[in-house]
Amino acid sequence: MCGVIGVVAASPVNQLIYDALLLLQHRGQDAAGMVTANDKRFFMHKNKGMVRDVFRTRNMRDLHGRCGIGHVRYPTAGNVDSLEEAQPFYVNAPYGLVLAHNGNLTNNNHMRENLFRLDKRHINTGSDSEALLNVLAHELDIAVKEADDLTPEEFFNAMTQVNKRVKGAYACVGMVARRALFGFRDVHGIRPLVLGERINEAGVKEYMLASESVALEGVGYHTVRDIAPGEAIWIGFDGEVFSRLCIPEGTKPEFSPCLFEYVYFARPDSVIDGTSVYSARLAMGETLAEKIRSEIDLKEIDVVMPIPDTSRPCAMQLAMILGLPYREGFIKNRYIGRTFIMPGQETRKKSVRQKLTPMPSEFKGKNVLLVDDSIVRGTTSQEIVALARESGAKKVYFASAAPAVKFPNVYGIDMPTRTELIAHNKDVEAVSREITADKVIYQDLSALEEAVRSVSQGGVKQFDASCFNGQYVTGDIDMAYLDALEQDKIDSAAAKKAAKKENKAH
Amino acid sequence: MCGVIGVVAASPVNQLIYDALLLLQHRGQDAAGMVTANDKRFFMHKNKGMVRDVFRTRNMRDLHGRCGIGHVRYPTAGNVDSLEEAQPFYVNAPYGLVLAHNGNLTNNNHMRENLFRLDKRHINTGSDSEALLNVLAHELDIAVKEADDLTPEEFFNAMTQVNKRVKGAYACVGMVARRALFGFRDVHGIRPLVLGERINEAGVKEYMLASESVALEGVGYHTVRDIAPGEAIWIGFDGEVFSRLCIPEGTKPEFSPCLFEYVYFARPDSVIDGTSVYSARLAMGETLAEKIRSEIDLKEIDVVMPIPDTSRPCAMQLAMILGLPYREGFIKNRYIGRTFIMPGQETRKKSVRQKLTPMPSEFKGKNVLLVDDSIVRGTTSQEIVALARESGAKKVYFASAAPAVKFPNVYGIDMPTRTELIAHNKDVEAVSREITADKVIYQDLSALEEAVRSVSQGGVKQFDASCFNGQYVTGDIDMAYLDALEQDKIDSAAAKKAAKKENKAH
Amino acid sequence: MCGVIGVVAASPVNQLIYDALLLLQHRGQDAAGMVTANDKRFFMHKNKGMVRDVFRTRNMRDLHGRCGIGHVRYPTAGNVDSLEEAQPFYVNAPYGLVLAHNGNLTNNNHMRENLFRLDKRHINTGSDSEALLNVLAHELDIAVKEADDLTPEEFFNAMTQVNKRVKGAYACVGMVARRALFGFRDVHGIRPLVLGERINEAGVKEYMLASESVALEGVGYHTVRDIAPGEAIWIGFDGEVFSRLCIPEGTKPEFSPCLFEYVYFARPDSVIDGTSVYSARLAMGETLAEKIRSEIDLKEIDVVMPIPDTSRPCAMQLAMILGLPYREGFIKNRYIGRTFIMPGQETRKKSVRQKLTPMPSEFKGKNVLLVDDSIVRGTTSQEIVALARESGAKKVYFASAAPAVKFPNVYGIDMPTRTELIAHNKDVEAVSREITADKVIYQDLSALEEAVRSVSQGGVKQFDASCFNGQYVTGDIDMAYLDALEQDKIDSAAAKKAAKKENKAH
Amino acid sequence: MCGVIGVVAASPVNQLIYDALLLLQHRGQDAAGMVTANDKRFFMHKNKGMVRDVFRTRNMRDLHGRCGIGHVRYPTAGNVDSLEEAQPFYVNAPYGLVLAHNGNLTNNNHMRENLFRLDKRHINTGSDSEALLNVLAHELDIAVKEADDLTPEEFFNAMTQVNKRVKGAYACVGMVARRALFGFRDVHGIRPLVLGERINEAGVKEYMLASESVALEGVGYHTVRDIAPGEAIWIGFDGEVFSRLCIPEGTKPEFSPCLFEYVYFARPDSVIDGTSVYSARLAMGETLAEKIRSEIDLKEIDVVMPIPDTSRPCAMQLAMILGLPYREGFIKNRYIGRTFIMPGQETRKKSVRQKLTPMPSEFKGKNVLLVDDSIVRGTTSQEIVALARESGAKKVYFASAAPAVKFPNVYGIDMPTRTELIAHNKDVEAVSREITADKVIYQDLSALEEAVRSVSQGGVKQFDASCFNGQYVTGDIDMAYLDALEQDKIDSAAAKKAAKKENKAH
Repeated sequence: MCGVIGVVAASPVNQLIYDALLLLQHRGQDAAGMVTANDKRFFMHKNKGMVRDVFRTRNMRDLHGRCGIGHVRYPTAGNVDSLEEAQPFYVNAPYGLVLAHNGNLTNNNHMRENLFRLDKRHINTGSDSEALLNVLAHELDIAVKEADDLTPEEFFNAMTQVNKRVKGAYACVGMVARRALFGFRDVHGIRPLVLGERINEAGVKEYMLASESVALEGVGYHTVRDIAPGEAIWIGFDGEVFSRLCIPEGTKPEFSPCLFEYVYFARPDSVIDGTSVYSARLAMGETLAEKIRSEIDLKEIDVVMPIPDTSRPCAMQLAMILGLPYREGFIKNRYIGRTFIMPGQETRKKSVRQKLTPMPSEFKGKNVLLVDDSIVRGTTSQEIVALARESGAKKVYFASAAPAVKFPNVYGIDMPTRTELIAHNKDVEAVSREITADKVIYQDLSALEEAVRSVSQGGVKQFDASCFNGQYVTGDIDMAYLDALEQDKIDSAAAKKAAKKENKAH
Repeated sequence: MCGVIGVVAASPVNQLIYDALLLLQHRGQDAAGMVTANDKRFFMHKNKGMVRDVFRTRNMRDLHGRCGIGHVRYPTAGNVDSLEEAQPFYVNAPYGLVLAHNGNLTNNNHMRENLFRLDKRHINTGSDSEALLNVLAHELDIAVKEADDLTPEEFFNAMTQVNKRVKGAYACVGMVARRALFGFRDVHGIRPLVLGERINEAGVKEYMLASESVALEGVGYHTVRDIAPGEAIWIGFDGEVFSRLCIPEGTKPEFSPCLFEYVYFARPDSVIDGTSVYSARLAMGETLAEKIRSEIDLKEIDVVMPIPDTSRPCAMQLAMILGLPYREGFIKNRYIGRTFIMPGQETRKKSVRQKLTPMPSEFKGKNVLLVDDSIVRGTTSQEIVALARESGAKKVYFASAAPAVKFPNVYGIDMPTRTELIAHNKDVEAVSREITADKVIYQDLSALEEAVRSVSQGGVKQFDASCFNGQYVTGDIDMAYLDALEQDKIDSAAAKKAAKKENKAH
Repeated sequence: MCGVIGVVAASPVNQLIYDALLLLQHRGQDAAGMVTANDKRFFMHKNKGMVRDVFRTRNMRDLHGRCGIGHVRYPTAGNVDSLEEAQPFYVNAPYGLVLAHNGNLTNNNHMRENLFRLDKRHINTGSDSEALLNVLAHELDIAVKEADDLTPEEFFNAMTQVNKRVKGAYACVGMVARRALFGFRDVHGIRPLVLGERINEAGVKEYMLASESVALEGVGYHTVRDIAPGEAIWIGFDGEVFSRLCIPEGTKPEFSPCLFEYVYFARPDSVIDGTSVYSARLAMGETLAEKIRSEIDLKEIDVVMPIPDTSRPCAMQLAMILGLPYREGFIKNRYIGRTFIMPGQETRKKSVRQKLTPMPSEFKGKNVLLVDDSIVRGTTSQEIVALARESGAKKVYFASAAPAVKFPNVYGIDMPTRTELIAHNKDVEAVSREITADKVIYQDLSALEEAVRSVSQGGVKQFDASCFNGQYVTGDIDMAYLDALEQDKIDSAAAKKAAKKENKAH
Repeated sequence: MCGVIGVVAASPVNQLIYDALLLLQHRGQDAAGMVTANDKRFFMHKNKGMVRDVFRTRNMRDLHGRCGIGHVRYPTAGNVDSLEEAQPFYVNAPYGLVLAHNGNLTNNNHMRENLFRLDKRHINTGSDSEALLNVLAHELDIAVKEADDLTPEEFFNAMTQVNKRVKGAYACVGMVARRALFGFRDVHGIRPLVLGERINEAGVKEYMLASESVALEGVGYHTVRDIAPGEAIWIGFDGEVFSRLCIPEGTKPEFSPCLFEYVYFARPDSVIDGTSVYSARLAMGETLAEKIRSEIDLKEIDVVMPIPDTSRPCAMQLAMILGLPYREGFIKNRYIGRTFIMPGQETRKKSVRQKLTPMPSEFKGKNVLLVDDSIVRGTTSQEIVALARESGAKKVYFASAAPAVKFPNVYGIDMPTRTELIAHNKDVEAVSREITADKVIYQDLSALEEAVRSVSQGGVKQFDASCFNGQYVTGDIDMAYLDALEQDKIDSAAAKKAAKKENKAH
């Protein structure tokens, strides 16, 4: 997953984008980048690492201009952890374009082949985002063939073609040199993109695009609306705004935002697609409470505890609904370090114990209901259950705000392969046994969807819930695709290992 | 405030100390350092910054040996933010000594004067810790004058002299080259120091000293006991342990640990001086609940909310006792950046809004009781109250788990000067007005002390509560001292500003 | 001035290009860069600084592939000392192109305007080299419009168009992704470019292009021939070589290499355009000897001395011809540092004394003839004369292997503006007075040209000698151009100063 | 070998010491360091690398004060290439001392043992310089026992004791905190140390100590005199100067400066111990000319050529004396890079060809006499002879300004072990054969000594010529010592290799 920011303002934007990226840091901690624009030039800085480490004073000093875009990267399947693949990307023709992309394209290989063969464009990395930018560049080139100049009209025409050629999930911001900031979102609206504005001291409107509303609001903008699925927006550097639905003829895509954003990914203090994430998580607690009531004798439960931080609202609401005590039995360690590989020394295994400390007084002699947002690999859950038992818990129930995760996400969330998912081929009893809980309770998918819908004021009706039900909304994902994806992952891990080994051998 | 670690083990300790320092990172984020020792040499690395930034693979590779000490630094009055003053400190004669210090000495100036004049020792920084190490070095030199060799006996004799010469708060770890790890604690036991041990795979006992138990427990050791006030411990590199109370004749100091550790400073998952910090904070919630019951009509309160993270246990317990709903209305932003000073640009003021986001649904139309651990300057509290009101709160009550802070801390906690403390010359109504709360409720000092005592299993009877009551347990602090301290602070801030200005002018 | 390298080999080329760049380091010490290519991708690293500082092990590890280009940069008029303008440059469409350029374009502004307006290409820096690459990209796009594929034929057609659109001096190397290394040289052949080859262990031919033969020979290649003026060469990654003269119809440019390369710029151990630089400098000594014989009574000269290092061959030959003793009276300091700007401290002025130490025994009581390659600003010459006198010289004659420098160089050598040139409006007597020499003897231009011609085996007939005679071979330079150039320089210096000042003010 | 600098001035000295260190850079390129002092504190910065790389603006800014010392390091036998062993060294008791040392102690092991056992001082590195500083610290402690204060008298008393305890070569500068700069030289005066002064603008005398006069003169000081063997000098921070011969009773050491300084090590533009290095090298050319005349028919020699840079004066004078043409047939490459170890790539062997390019026109068909300063391992000489032959030389004679090098240097010059010295067990014919020269001519030792003596105005009568004749002036070096030294070298190389291997295996 990634986070994107775009701004057109009346004064320098480097600090503003920096602050906004910090508010999106949870969406990607692997790399960060920024491009600003003045009347003539782009200024770019990007690097691996977290926002606070990537941008130093000397970098910030060179990021001139009152318009710009920013990006935080989470490593996804395709893009390895290289600097070259850090975003934004840049192409200089036509016009000079930069792009920052959140999501994942599902027809990357096909697209790259066409770019190389037909469009004569060189893609220098494995990144689908670089390919996407080049498709846009190519289509823009065609769109302005007959035109005197590049107007929003030509841009929207090009975007319609882009939406025809590109499959998958993409919520993007970008800039055309000397002209405009733009943003667009795939036709299913899988990844979020929000428009904000503010009136500055001089009474002039300034605009901001962001993956989540918290990034706008946290820096003093207010939310105007979500960019619609298939919509593109053009915000001239002069402040004029244009937008259009750029849905290719003959297609009628349904709006299907990613359900996992509400479960885990987005910040609770964001409102995306008209839906407060915090409210959605409270609602998940309500529906999950009903499921628990139906599966466990409530007298068997002494206390409800969240696994901090994500599941806190869900657990709290659940406890309230069930009339059970809510306690925080685990303290989360905020400072995370790394494990160094030392010649001749054994490497200490990092465990969940360095991240969570149990408070024995809360566990001793009690039956506890632990609430987490989801169970993916199951290894952490197992360690948590063990911690609870060591701390004196009698019985340990484990509730998940999300249904069983059984399929990979191909729309930008880095998930393990199917065989690594604990629930892939197991029923709930088997999962319980494996994580050594007395009982595991999963939220039902329909209940989860209902919970989110119930608090939505944005008219969201359906979701991409593919990691739960294997139904991929873009319609182009079959078993062969998933098999290939997993093989790629295995190959790339092997290649990485081999490269490391060779490094050491020389 | 600072955190210290010391280890004698049977295998390399660099990763172990690193992991333990991360668990003490909350005690100091300004600088970090480590010294390891093998049979012949010390290996040191220290720098400004957080643990994860200070130690790189190349540094770790050079930190050989199976014994070592570590330090995280919080800037205190005397020591400016310089690298030179990062700890541990080293002197090579006699024997080769290193030291890491948590606390603050109150007779630094007098001590330095004596070191220079009488002991002919050069102190190259303003740090009281470097002075402390040199006092120890000098006393050790004297203690072994007649002896054939340095045994624990001579060390303890020297420590008794050190405790005579040095005033203030100090909990330290250190090493004598080729011989031993040592630890000691001032005669009032103001700062904590805990001993831990484990049996390794080979059946050999390994030892660890740490500022808080969480650092021991988090890396697989278990707590044995607290070092006593005035006690010194000598753990030979061969594993033999000696300890002695080194209290100078004629003095009968009373054990008075710092009360603020329980209120705010220590991690909740630590047990120090036999007292679980978590339990202490729960207990503070109980006593504070009674105070509130007596001051506010409970029907006037719709919901209780913590200011995350420290006040969570207190607020939760308080709500439970009062039978009021407990909700988390503020979301804390985990990623904090900085404000860059750009030529020609105005600097954006960072506000509490970038750290805390309110959840409007929790505030709308409600009377809220906010619970924080303490109120120091009051500026943050004021912003929080404003946020709550903007989010729709009708009435905003503000409860503090600690009494009004009216005096500076001279034992290692960096506090503002008296005039900057909101409660210094104000009564509670004036404070309420200033932070724009409907009512402020402070815990009573006696209730706070009682709360901590009630959960203590370490026999703690009294505390240093000087920042609340102005009574400094070391007996050497008068108004003249505080005046001088504050003047120093003003001078040093002015000097810093002047230096910066000059830098820019050239 | 800059230096360029290009290689197509059968094994990794990163170390090879690094070694070759070191041998061209004298051509540019301001920045360095390298791009390598494997089957699919380019790998680039560039930065400000000298070769040894720019390339670290971690950078070299990422420079994969058996083909590549390299560049060392000397700051020229237009391009300020920014990282963005470090070479090589890259554009991704069409095909993926990289370019490294030695020289300077004289119609940069016109070209940029056209690129922006007509070709819709965004140039993100002030660099003429980026513009040149984009002209090539654009012409290549047009050239392949009708073609099925990009063959050398289309490339040469595009190059003919490039040579039509672009004015000035350019000797370039570049690559087309997945296809070929290429090189080309402007139609006057102002800057040098040499082709080398070698047969590797497997019997396969490998090719190298370089600014000077020393870079080829020093890494084990041997010189094949110079690239001709207006010629372009295409060396497929498969090893097939094609070349063509790409001179636009209707033009008959004359071959006019830069005379200053022989006087000062090129290394003595290079052979460029069939002319040994070392031999040329010996020959300059011979012709200069005749001039001296005609102007000074030889009995008045006790000893001949070079100003190390460049003028050594010239001075040595001159002394031999005149039958005068040759001595090295100045020792050159090899280690050059910088002057730090310290707040509150006066800055020490660096003088020629830190670069050259006179040997008093060689000067005492003697009449000395100092020989330098040229006199540009005159300030250094003046300091040298003063040093000689202080060391005891009776009379100081000063001979210059080059004629008086009176005009700026617009073809890639960074020269001061006319008003800063000591000889701009002065006759030789006035120059003598200003540098306080007893007499200054300049080589005559015709003698200099004759000297170089006399040792040329490459058929060089005429030269660009514009800095001596103001005749610019490209025919597009008039007084207005030079005025504008100098105004630019003044403006940019002022802007730089202002920026610095503002930096300090904040 | 190393270089040292010490200054007492009236204004900040950081830039001055930096400039002076650059002028001594030839004496050590492995590490550099500086300590400055203000009224109260020392400020230190040191690191591995060359002066220009070690000192950045941020480091310079922190080097306050108007007194200071500096050091450049050349790796010698004992001290490996570690940062810890970079100089200056610091001890804080008594008084606060810093020291920078040029030379090598021959009783390091014995001294360290005593420091540890008797003086209870911990030496944290393998460096003999750290040990030397601690001996001084200990003796100073004793010397002031009875004294009220530390005066120059006590310092000189301590120095007499130091000269009794310490064996080998040492020319040092140092400081006592708040008091004085000091310098001293071993009783045989093996390494040089020069005193300089200047009168500043305010009419106040400022002082400088340096390894070579060029460092004084190059920064505007003038040479006063050499520090005498066994002399110590004390220059108070107030400008008062004291000095004394500190030769222990009963010893009558003879002044024996290192002969190799004149042959190769020192800069030609230095005057050390009253002897111009440049003049000495000219004189070596004269004596070597006589030797050649007696061994070769001069008609057999067409041209004399130096191997640049060191042998230039010698070769030039030799050619003049013999009436033979002097030419520079080799061009030296000024830019030296490194060989990267790349995984999976073969490493290119660096050869002398990347350092020297022959000018074929100077060699073709000629009998050449090459002149070098010395022949150590012989491998470079062999490559040079091969280059000359490839360039067309008919006969190649090879003359060495120094006699055959047969023994290691134990006084600070890093030389190979005996078995690696080409002349160790070979006569001159065998050496000729091995380097494939037609004839090798070595200067005779007596002639070399006479040459240096002939130009000395400092009364130098005899030298340490141990690497030629095996007679070590300190009298404590026997075959067992040399055997142990070489075994150490082998062991340390093996340990280094093992460490590297292990690094890679993990």
